[in-house]
Amino acid sequence: MVGFETVRDLAVQTPSKIVFLVMDGLGGLSHPRTRRTELESANVPNFDRLATEGNLGLTDPVAPGVTPGSGPSHLALFGYDPFRHLIGRGALEATGIEFELGPDDLAIRGNFCTIDAEGRVTDRRAGRIDTDRCAALCRLLEQIELDGVRTFVEPVRDHRFVLVLRAPGLEEAVSTNDPEREPAPLLPLQALAPQAEATATLVRRWAEAARDLLVEQSPANMVLLRGYSHRPTLPPMSELYRLTPAAIAVYPMYRGLARLLGMTVLATGTTVADQVATLRENWEAFDFFFVHVKATDTAGEDGNFDAKVAAIEAVDEVVPEIRALHPDVLVVTGDHSTPATMAAHSWHPVPFLLYSRWGRADESTAFHENACAQGALGRIPATAAMPLALAHAGKLAKYGA
Amino acid sequence: MVGFETVRDLAVQTPSKIVFLVMDGLGGLSHPRTRRTELESANVPNFDRLATEGNLGLTDPVAPGVTPGSGPSHLALFGYDPFRHLIGRGALEATGIEFELGPDDLAIRGNFCTIDAEGRVTDRRAGRIDTDRCAALCRLLEQIELDGVRTFVEPVRDHRFVLVLRAPGLEEAVSTNDPEREPAPLLPLQALAPQAEATATLVRRWAEAARDLLVEQSPANMVLLRGYSHRPTLPPMSELYRLTPAAIAVYPMYRGLARLLGMTVLATGTTVADQVATLRENWEAFDFFFVHVKATDTAGEDGNFDAKVAAIEAVDEVVPEIRALHPDVLVVTGDHSTPATMAAHSWHPVPFLLYSRWGRADESTAFHENACAQGALGRIPATAAMPLALAHAGKLAKYGA
Repeated sequence: MVGFETVRDLAVQTPSKIVFLVMDGLGGLSHPRTRRTELESANVPNFDRLATEGNLGLTDPVAPGVTPGSGPSHLALFGYDPFRHLIGRGALEATGIEFELGPDDLAIRGNFCTIDAEGRVTDRRAGRIDTDRCAALCRLLEQIELDGVRTFVEPVRDHRFVLVLRAPGLEEAVSTNDPEREPAPLLPLQALAPQAEATATLVRRWAEAARDLLVEQSPANMVLLRGYSHRPTLPPMSELYRLTPAAIAVYPMYRGLARLLGMTVLATGTTVADQVATLRENWEAFDFFFVHVKATDTAGEDGNFDAKVAAIEAVDEVVPEIRALHPDVLVVTGDHSTPATMAAHSWHPVPFLLYSRWGRADESTAFHENACAQGALGRIPATAAMPLALAHAGKLAKYGA
Repeated sequence: MVGFETVRDLAVQTPSKIVFLVMDGLGGLSHPRTRRTELESANVPNFDRLATEGNLGLTDPVAPGVTPGSGPSHLALFGYDPFRHLIGRGALEATGIEFELGPDDLAIRGNFCTIDAEGRVTDRRAGRIDTDRCAALCRLLEQIELDGVRTFVEPVRDHRFVLVLRAPGLEEAVSTNDPEREPAPLLPLQALAPQAEATATLVRRWAEAARDLLVEQSPANMVLLRGYSHRPTLPPMSELYRLTPAAIAVYPMYRGLARLLGMTVLATGTTVADQVATLRENWEAFDFFFVHVKATDTAGEDGNFDAKVAAIEAVDEVVPEIRALHPDVLVVTGDHSTPATMAAHSWHPVPFLLYSRWGRADESTAFHENACAQGALGRIPATAAMPLALAHAGKLAKYGA
């Protein structure tokens, strides 16, 4: 794999522009009846045209067989070795809501959830309560006091919140209480390393207090905690690639991730059309755009095959507007697969489309998993996406004489 | 990637023979009119037969997106990690003309070039003056004296020469004066690190003296200098692979590279037919042959699509003679891509063909980029070429019990 040092040495600043159009969880699996994936089922004439004019491949976000979380999969897509740089989910969520993590902060990802009388988790998302309700419950939980620790409870979106514990010496090695299935008993919150005992005790105490405070708040009558993490340090994309990068993302976590990589996070609306309008308005000011679409992943996670197909088609519709801006490189891909039939992230490689004037003409005429498996780019690590895009944009000098 | 240590442990000496037929810059891009690459346009029945009987794939010389120079791309093809081993162009060129670099030598690659009255470079190759003229000008430049430094000016081929400065403490970190485009002013020769100031001053002084001496010699009225480098140390192929390797290359730089890897560099003529005659004459004495063809890259660099097609076809014609020798493994590939449409090296992956009795029968019937993208070998790093060839030749033992 190309290391940072090499790319940093080879990258040159040019006026050419790159767009990464990322449909979260894009990769899918065949519907049991039609034997077609979500992308194969979708009517995507604009993607198909791009496939005809560009090149296809499949990416492995982390490694074959490894199902990535959103952090590693996005890091890889932007060229950061996901084994070397691991951002905890808590730190991601906190950054996404513009919570400035300090050096003594431990950020924790929280879900409101529903538990039954026996304490079993019956809905890990508390019926996806709305964000206002989430905010009210967060204010309730901010009443919890822990000795020697300042606590912050911040709503994210729907049932999600961030808990930040601020105190010296907090450790990341604490287990989650999320059973990751329903119905199932809460798992115990435990230290995963001896030095994390004190932190685990604090987290346990906080979760018990939260349960007491939420007892009347069904469906949001308990919390699931995970992703304990400090703020990571990552070299910015401007330094690595000599880019002026911007992110156009709706969902807080991806805005947070983009900010951690030094992207300017642009204000935008909530629809894909809004995002493309933001792209157009900011076209002159940046040379790299990360456009993140969440709806594909949400539908996949919900196991809603048809909704995922519709989400893909909605993105296809805006492709002509993006092409009208004449990007030098347009990459259409996902960060990982979220097959609706699995209702979860998966390890399957991800459809990847690269359009530029420097592609090899090939036989591809459609954009979907099987076409990508036959694509001219072959199967590549997701970390190759940035060097490839930079090369096609004329932004990488020759290596060696 | 398989490291040296592993291959060294597994390699066994056997009578089987391997031929690497390397067409420099083989990979191409589609012609805008025909939408066919150089290799797709060429009439290559013998390569196509090999493709039918052997297996195809695509190689990444260094990494996806990275455009390699000739040094890294050849190192990779012979199994040397191109990130770990970087040979400067000067050292390559010097070795290529059998100039024995010593420990105090700094080798510098030189081009004669044309500058106009304003000192702008108008032809970076001085109209490709012939080698005799180059040699005469080199003798002129050997008059230049630098205090405390012994200098050598050796012709290479056409407009190319090598300047060797011999003195203790010389440094590689000096910038080129080559603007790499035409017309453009000469760049200043500068130290790229504080410890290289003295070396940069010497190089500047030499270049200024050269300009004075060449003032009446248009089109060769100035020099471009780059690739400042000491002699590298590389483990020889005999030790790594237990091979007795020979190189059949016309162009000095590739002869030099082969020598740095411990190959015996055979005397040969200037045509591909001469090279095959040399192969036949030396068939019994060696078990690995590197046959290097430069014409494909030269045509690509010149942006001459048809000349590159013709160069490929000329190599195809000698394939039956090579096959008549019954090599156990015949690899046909390039070191990198040089699409005529780009008139430069590029990052695109390289067609790779491996013929042996141990290939898997597949559907391939033609040798070109798109067939290789569909090939049974998939997309592999170029450093996999040697282990694969050794394996197919029965020269790699089992790893582990």
